[in-house]
Amino acid sequence: MAETTIVLYLFKRLHQLGIRSVHGVPGDYNLVALDNLGDAGLNWVGNCNELNAGYAADGYARIKGISALITTFGVGELSALAAVAGSYSERVPVVHIVGTPSTISQRQGALLHHTLGNGDFSVFANMSRNISSLLVNLNDPTTAARDIDRALRECYVSAQPIYIALPTDMVLRKISAQGLETPINMELLENDPHVERDVIENITKMVYAANNAIILVDSCAIRHRVIDEVHDLIDKSQLPAFATPMSKGAIDETNPRFGGVYVGSVSRPDVKEAVECADLIISIGALKSDFNSGGFTYHTSRKSTIELHSDHTKIGYATYPGITMKPVLQKLLSSLDFHKIRHTDSAKSAPPVLKNEEAEKSDSQAITHSWFWPHIGNWLQENDVVITETGTANFGIIETRFPKGVTAISQVLWGSIGYSVGACQGAALAIKESDPSRRVILFVGDGSFQLTGNEVSTMIRHGLKPILVIINNEGYTIERMIHGEDAEYNDIQPWKHTKLLETFGAKEGEYSNHVVKTREDVDNLFKKGNEFSKADKIQLVELFMPKLDAPRALKITGKMSEKLNAKTE
Amino acid sequence: MAETTIVLYLFKRLHQLGIRSVHGVPGDYNLVALDNLGDAGLNWVGNCNELNAGYAADGYARIKGISALITTFGVGELSALAAVAGSYSERVPVVHIVGTPSTISQRQGALLHHTLGNGDFSVFANMSRNISSLLVNLNDPTTAARDIDRALRECYVSAQPIYIALPTDMVLRKISAQGLETPINMELLENDPHVERDVIENITKMVYAANNAIILVDSCAIRHRVIDEVHDLIDKSQLPAFATPMSKGAIDETNPRFGGVYVGSVSRPDVKEAVECADLIISIGALKSDFNSGGFTYHTSRKSTIELHSDHTKIGYATYPGITMKPVLQKLLSSLDFHKIRHTDSAKSAPPVLKNEEAEKSDSQAITHSWFWPHIGNWLQENDVVITETGTANFGIIETRFPKGVTAISQVLWGSIGYSVGACQGAALAIKESDPSRRVILFVGDGSFQLTGNEVSTMIRHGLKPILVIINNEGYTIERMIHGEDAEYNDIQPWKHTKLLETFGAKEGEYSNHVVKTREDVDNLFKKGNEFSKADKIQLVELFMPKLDAPRALKITGKMSEKLNAKTE
Repeated sequence: MAETTIVLYLFKRLHQLGIRSVHGVPGDYNLVALDNLGDAGLNWVGNCNELNAGYAADGYARIKGISALITTFGVGELSALAAVAGSYSERVPVVHIVGTPSTISQRQGALLHHTLGNGDFSVFANMSRNISSLLVNLNDPTTAARDIDRALRECYVSAQPIYIALPTDMVLRKISAQGLETPINMELLENDPHVERDVIENITKMVYAANNAIILVDSCAIRHRVIDEVHDLIDKSQLPAFATPMSKGAIDETNPRFGGVYVGSVSRPDVKEAVECADLIISIGALKSDFNSGGFTYHTSRKSTIELHSDHTKIGYATYPGITMKPVLQKLLSSLDFHKIRHTDSAKSAPPVLKNEEAEKSDSQAITHSWFWPHIGNWLQENDVVITETGTANFGIIETRFPKGVTAISQVLWGSIGYSVGACQGAALAIKESDPSRRVILFVGDGSFQLTGNEVSTMIRHGLKPILVIINNEGYTIERMIHGEDAEYNDIQPWKHTKLLETFGAKEGEYSNHVVKTREDVDNLFKKGNEFSKADKIQLVELFMPKLDAPRALKITGKMSEKLNAKTE
Repeated sequence: MAETTIVLYLFKRLHQLGIRSVHGVPGDYNLVALDNLGDAGLNWVGNCNELNAGYAADGYARIKGISALITTFGVGELSALAAVAGSYSERVPVVHIVGTPSTISQRQGALLHHTLGNGDFSVFANMSRNISSLLVNLNDPTTAARDIDRALRECYVSAQPIYIALPTDMVLRKISAQGLETPINMELLENDPHVERDVIENITKMVYAANNAIILVDSCAIRHRVIDEVHDLIDKSQLPAFATPMSKGAIDETNPRFGGVYVGSVSRPDVKEAVECADLIISIGALKSDFNSGGFTYHTSRKSTIELHSDHTKIGYATYPGITMKPVLQKLLSSLDFHKIRHTDSAKSAPPVLKNEEAEKSDSQAITHSWFWPHIGNWLQENDVVITETGTANFGIIETRFPKGVTAISQVLWGSIGYSVGACQGAALAIKESDPSRRVILFVGDGSFQLTGNEVSTMIRHGLKPILVIINNEGYTIERMIHGEDAEYNDIQPWKHTKLLETFGAKEGEYSNHVVKTREDVDNLFKKGNEFSKADKIQLVELFMPKLDAPRALKITGKMSEKLNAKTE
C-alpha cells in the first residue's frame, strides 16, 4: 500500500482544496514541515510577521474559498491570534497549522524556548479553542489522516478557522496515502426532510401572499456559498434585492433589481423606506452587528421576516434549528411558481449613484468623502477586487456603485485596524494564481496602515501588483468620529508614504508612486485606460483628505457608538 | 471625603509606581480612558500596533521596574498576546489594561464590532488567563479601588503581567480617592521563621564546608530584585560569580570575582570547568531553559547545589516550598561569618575577552561573529543599555565583556523574533525619562527586524536616540543554524535599511545612517568619543555579516535543537 508522511498527507489535502500558497513565518518547530511544501505543489509566502500572515490568509481565503497559515509554537501562533479570531468572527475558513515541540519534549514538560517556562504545553492551543471551529493534535500516526480530513471538512463547512498542532517528531512519520485518492466530502448534511418540507411550505405561502417582498442579502450568504442561488432567486422572482455593508458586492449592482445597501437608520432615505415598507423580508445570511446594522437600527418586523441561516431558519417568530439555507434555497428555486410572486416596484430604490450631486457642486478642490466614494465608482471596472480598511474606507465604500463581478473585502464585524494591508497581500496573491487580469485595489487610512504596512514588502517580494491607496488624513479618523476629535492619541507619526516601495526593496521601473491632493488630481489619475489603470506593476497612491471629514454613515455610527459606550442604567 | 474616578484611581496608582508613559494603541473601547492620562501625570506613547506596544512595555518595565499597556477589547488585546505571554514567560511586570464594551452591552450579549459575533464577552479575557498572574474586571465601583490595588501588588510581587478589564461605562464612575493617600504595600510576605531558620542553618553549614564554592546568578535574581544582595554576597564572600545568558549584565563584569557566562556544554572551556568543578554551587534565581543552559547540558550535582528562588528554596535534594530568596539572602548577609568561607581561586575563570585572538589573526575583512562580539566590548561604555534580538545577537553578546552598570535586555526563554525592536522603543523611552545620559544600543538581525521595524517610527515620534544596529546577513540565520541552511523559507525580502529613518518621518539633521561592511568600517565607526558614539540623535547602522556565519554558542545550540525536535523514541 502506498505510503506518505503526515505532513505530506496534510499538504496534499490542502492542494486538493485549491490552495497553492501557504502563508506564515518560519520558526524552528515548523522548519522540517516547510521542507515539504514543494513536494505537495505548494509555495511558501514568508510574511513579515504572523499577524500579517493571518490577515493575508484571510484575504486569500476570501478569493480562493479556503487558505492555510503556518506558525510556530507559542511566539508565532499567539502573534496570529487577532487575525485568526477575525476569521472566526467573520466566518472565513483558514487552516492554522502550528509546529509544536516534539511529543517527547511535551510529555517531559521540558523547559524549552517559546514556552511559559512552566512545563505546560497546552496553554497556547487552549487559547485558540474558542476561536477555532475544531482543534486537532496530530500526535498519533494511526489517526492522523482521519483527523486531518475531519478537521479540513469542519473548516470548509463551518467556514471558520481550525487549529492543527503538528509536533516536530510527527512531521515525517509514515502513514498510508490511500485516503488521498478520495477527495474529502465537503457536501452539507441534508436537512431533516419533514422539517424542511414544512419550512418550504411556510415560506412559499408567505412569498405568494406578499405584495412587496424584498430580498436582503448579508455576509453569511457569501461565506456559506449561496450567492449563485441568491442571484437565481433575484432573477427568477424579480424581487428587489438589498445588500448590507458586510455583503456589499455580493449582489450584482448592475442588476436592475439591485436596490442599494441597507444599514438601518444610517441607510440612504430611499433605501431605508424601500426595506422598511416591505411587507416581507427574505433575509439571507444575516449578521446584524452594530456597524452592519447602523447601530442596531433595523426597523423591520420579525413577524414578516424569513431568515435563512447556515445552521437554522426563522420564519416570523418560529425557529427551525438545524435547517440550513443552501438546500432550502435550492428547493425553493425549483418548487416556487414565480408567476405567483408580485414584484411591484413599490419597494424599489435607486442603487448607489456615480456622482454625489451635492458634493459635486462645491467649489472646493478638497477630496471629501461625500465626493470621493461615489465618484470612484466610475473608475472601477468589472471583476476588480476592492479591499477597504476598517475606518473611513469601510463606511465610504457603501456609497460606491460597483461594476459587475467586483469582489469586496473588509472586516465590518471584527474591525481590526491594519487588517486590510495583510488581506490585500493574500487576495492579490490569490488573484495572481487564479486570474491575473483582475485588479486588486486597497483603500486604507494612514493610521491603520502603520500597523501592518511592512506587509507591502511581501507584495513586492512576490511580484504582486495591487493599487495601494493610502488615505492621508493625519491619524485615526474613525476614532475621532467616535471620541477625541482633536485628541493627541488619535494622531500618528507622519510617514513619507512615497518612500515606502523603494525602502521595501521595489526595483526601479517596477513600481510607481502618485500623490493626489485635489479633485482634479483624482480625475487625472483615476482615468479609465491610462497607464495607472492598467495596474501592471505595484502602485502606491497617497490621497490627501481633510482630517475631520468622514463618510456620512461613519459620522452617524461613530456618535451612536460613543453613546452606547457611555450609557449607564 | 475626596472622590475620584475609577480610571483616575488606576492611573494615579500607576504614576505612584514610577510609570510616566503608557504604551498602547487607541481603540473605541479605551478612548475615554485615554482622555484621563494627562490628569494623572502620564504620557501616551501611541505605538504602531499592539504587538509592538506589548514588547515596548516589556522593555520599559525592564528599566523602570513596571509598565503599563492599554489596548482595546478583542482586536487590540489579542494582537498583544504574544508580547504579554513573553512578559509572563520572562517574568516582567506589565499591567495590561483592556478597554471593554460597557457592562450593559456585555450583559445583553450585544453583537458589537470587535466581538466573535456570538455574544460571548468572556472569551478574550479567558485567553489571557494563563499568561497573567491575575485577572480583574473593574465592573463594580464598590470594589474597584481594592481590585486595582490587589492587582498591582500581584503584578509587582509576582513580576508577571496582570490583566485589568475596564468597561466603558465604568471609566468615569466615582469612587473614594482615599486609598491613593497610602502607597500600595509591595513588601514581600515574611518567610515562615522556623523553616527559614532551618534553611539558613543548612546553607551556612554547606558554605563553611565547601572548598571552592561558586555563585551562579540567573535571570530571576534580576526579576525578583535581589541584585544588590547578590553583589553584597560576592563582595563579602569573594566567591567567584558566574552569569547565564539570561542574566548577562546582572553581575558587574569588571568585578575581579566575575568569572564569565555559564551555558552548560556550550560554555567556554575554562568557564565550564570552573563551574562544574566547584564543590558547591549557590544558584540564585535559576531558569534553566534550553537556550539558557546550553540545551540542558549542566553537568552539576544537585546534591551540592543550593537553589534560591522567588517562591521556594532547594538545598541538595530537599525542597522548601514558600521560602523566598530575598529575606534568605538578607539574613545570610548579616549572619554569615565571611572569614570562614574559603574562596580559593581554583574555581576562577577569566571573564569574556575584549579581543578574540584567533579571529583577529584572520586577514579577511569580513565581520564575523567571533571577531565582532568581543571586539564591540571595547566600545561599550558604563551604563549603556544593550538590547539583543533572539537570533545571532543573543548568542553573540555572551562573548562581549560589559563595562560596569550595563543593562542587557533580551528574550532567551520566550525568544520571539521582533521583540527587541519594540523593547528598544520602551527601554529608550524609560531611559529618556530616568537618565538620558545612558546610551541605548540595539543589535537586531535583518530577518527579525522585518516583524516590528515599523516601531522605529515611534522612536522618532518621541525623539528617542537609540543606536540601531541592523545585522544584514540575508535572512533568518538562527533558523539556518537549526534547519534549512539554504532553504528559501529562511530568506527575506531585502530592504533598503538606510531609507527607513527618513521614510518613518525623521527630520533632516535629526538622524544619521551608517553602512559598515568591513572590520575597518567597524573600527572607524565604533570609536570612543566620536560624534557617532555621543548618541545625541537616532542612528541606524547597517552592519553586513556573512550569511552563514554565527556565534559559536548558536552553532552548537542550533544543532542540539534540531536533534531534539527530530528525536523519536
